[in-house]
Amino acid sequence: MIDSERLARAALSRLLEPQDAVGLALVRAAGAVDALRIATGRLASGPELERDVTALLADNGTGSWPGMNASLKRWAPRIPDLAPERDLATMHRLGGRLIIPSDALWPGQLADLDLHEPLCLWWRGMEHPLPAAAKSVALVGSRDSTSYGASVTGDLAYWLAQRGFTIVSGGAYGIDAHAHRAALAGAGETMPTIAVMAGGVDRFYPSGNEDLLRTVANQGAVLAEVPPGSAPTRYRFLQRNRLIAALSSVTVVVEARWRSGALNTAHHAETLGRAVGAVPGSVHSANSAGCHRLIREGGAVCVTDAGEVAELASPSGQSMAEPAPDQRADHDGLTLEDLILLDALPLRSTSSVEKLTTVAGLSAESVRAGLGRLGLLGLAESERGGWKRSRKAC
Amino acid sequence: MIDSERLARAALSRLLEPQDAVGLALVRAAGAVDALRIATGRLASGPELERDVTALLADNGTGSWPGMNASLKRWAPRIPDLAPERDLATMHRLGGRLIIPSDALWPGQLADLDLHEPLCLWWRGMEHPLPAAAKSVALVGSRDSTSYGASVTGDLAYWLAQRGFTIVSGGAYGIDAHAHRAALAGAGETMPTIAVMAGGVDRFYPSGNEDLLRTVANQGAVLAEVPPGSAPTRYRFLQRNRLIAALSSVTVVVEARWRSGALNTAHHAETLGRAVGAVPGSVHSANSAGCHRLIREGGAVCVTDAGEVAELASPSGQSMAEPAPDQRADHDGLTLEDLILLDALPLRSTSSVEKLTTVAGLSAESVRAGLGRLGLLGLAESERGGWKRSRKAC
Repeated sequence: MIDSERLARAALSRLLEPQDAVGLALVRAAGAVDALRIATGRLASGPELERDVTALLADNGTGSWPGMNASLKRWAPRIPDLAPERDLATMHRLGGRLIIPSDALWPGQLADLDLHEPLCLWWRGMEHPLPAAAKSVALVGSRDSTSYGASVTGDLAYWLAQRGFTIVSGGAYGIDAHAHRAALAGAGETMPTIAVMAGGVDRFYPSGNEDLLRTVANQGAVLAEVPPGSAPTRYRFLQRNRLIAALSSVTVVVEARWRSGALNTAHHAETLGRAVGAVPGSVHSANSAGCHRLIREGGAVCVTDAGEVAELASPSGQSMAEPAPDQRADHDGLTLEDLILLDALPLRSTSSVEKLTTVAGLSAESVRAGLGRLGLLGLAESERGGWKRSRKAC
Repeated sequence: MIDSERLARAALSRLLEPQDAVGLALVRAAGAVDALRIATGRLASGPELERDVTALLADNGTGSWPGMNASLKRWAPRIPDLAPERDLATMHRLGGRLIIPSDALWPGQLADLDLHEPLCLWWRGMEHPLPAAAKSVALVGSRDSTSYGASVTGDLAYWLAQRGFTIVSGGAYGIDAHAHRAALAGAGETMPTIAVMAGGVDRFYPSGNEDLLRTVANQGAVLAEVPPGSAPTRYRFLQRNRLIAALSSVTVVVEARWRSGALNTAHHAETLGRAVGAVPGSVHSANSAGCHRLIREGGAVCVTDAGEVAELASPSGQSMAEPAPDQRADHDGLTLEDLILLDALPLRSTSSVEKLTTVAGLSAESVRAGLGRLGLLGLAESERGGWKRSRKAC
């Protein structure tokens, strides 16, 4: 027994392209069951409902629409293909399921997409809730990644997975694959990684990543908003990117060309008010040009290690960034006079207070007081009545 | 015949360390000639003058000072060393000169330093005015630069010098030397490059750069605010950095460790309201950590080529940045429906309008109109009554 809401959403996900604004507004206004009946011509829409849809579209900045009749015409060609029971049976056979917003497994963070929240998710993988956005990090980037991109992605994903973060990516070659792989390697937890697909999850696409995606499904999840059998078209890739961004509290672009799908994911994240990071690289690498573009244009924060990514993911929490090794020097915090005095102290021979007054241009009192302070800090030492710089201060 | 103002400033530049706030305020309040007489105990200061000095220091945020007597005590040890005529003769022998703010050669942009404007510049090089700040770019960075830093610095300096910019740097090993060298190579103009030294310009320091600095002096200028014979102390390096920043409209840090003198120059530039750029690099390179830190903390704009540096140098002028090669794709600016339609078009076989309505989920009218638009753009083509994607759209 499959409930009608689930069946309706399954059918609608085949009838409507992802983010079909009119269709989503219709579902919002009439509910999924009636929306399906209207969209398939089994129920008339009525002027009140059309007013509601118009208002929802206007609220979402979608502006004017061609009206219900034109929309119905647009949807009509796909009606003969609808077979939601078959699609649900396919998922069941693959060990998967369909989840809808009323399910406990539904990721709450998708509500931030508002009208653009997907109708359902075709879910292949563990029956375990996705982590909250704050524990999810999207790592995205070029398909033709360099060894540099592979190495940085591996370090980030492994470190983050070890600390209980879930790595969200798109299952593609290059950066995506490196991210999924390193997350699986670093995982102590369930759900180390999630792949969000542009096409149906009945096929693991691209085929070269089949083994990897099977492992992701076994230890995490492989998701899509389009039903089994759907081809991964360019349009669906762009819409899929909004899901990657919405599922994560931070999207990090590791490598991207000047134009790249990863920048589109970054843009979705920004629109959702999520944090965006980009990894810098060589200015000679075309694969870093998109990252530098994001950083330059203020679309991303420059991130150089996993600690900085974790900080973006949970900015209110404790910073996990480790201080850089040479962050403090011994002469930090000296007054200008003491710094001048330190400069004036010889390294090998020693100098008298009188000589130091001339070299440093300070009064004898200042020199004596300063030598006392530098001595306490271990930066100056006296030897046979004279003063020299200590080894530590060099 | 050397005028007394010039002699006084020559003497004061030996008596006072760079940026001695009390000394500079005294010069501002009493004029250089009387300031020297007061500082050397040949003239009493008087309560009115002390009030003026106090006010100047307060205006500059220097706060309370120990009073004139304590300051005089501080300066006293160096009085026996004063020999301005000898210093000027030394410079003359070296083919150099002393320039002071009333000289035509004085760089007007130094006035932005306000109370911290140097008293004079010891100038070894061409008797030719420095360019206005808008045509000067400071390139600074690590002494132990990598081959990456050397290559980026060379590209930037050469490109900028070829377009008439003057490259300002500090004459040190590493990035500084690469910047001077490439500017000399790229120069068509006088003053391709200026080296600002922390010690006296009678010696070319460091000795390994002697030949380079001699060439810089022959084709550009080597400058310092400290007189001949002065050692390049750590304190003077930090003060020298403010001159590099003030002489340029943009300071670019090419490579810098987490802590680096180059960051100090960047900070001076920021304080002066000058633009700051930093070049990104590998996150694995310690020599880029300082650059990434600047970019992360908002202290610098990420710059990846000379065009972007030129844009920072003259933001009001025409942008010199060349567009990235792959900045536009043929499917830019398509509507969502046309993009979906483009995705639905087969590559090798052809498809009917009817089939396209099903695959794309669009009405037959939309498909026909969309095919027309894609055809005009050369993205779709008809063949034997069917439609396919054209080569150009792949």
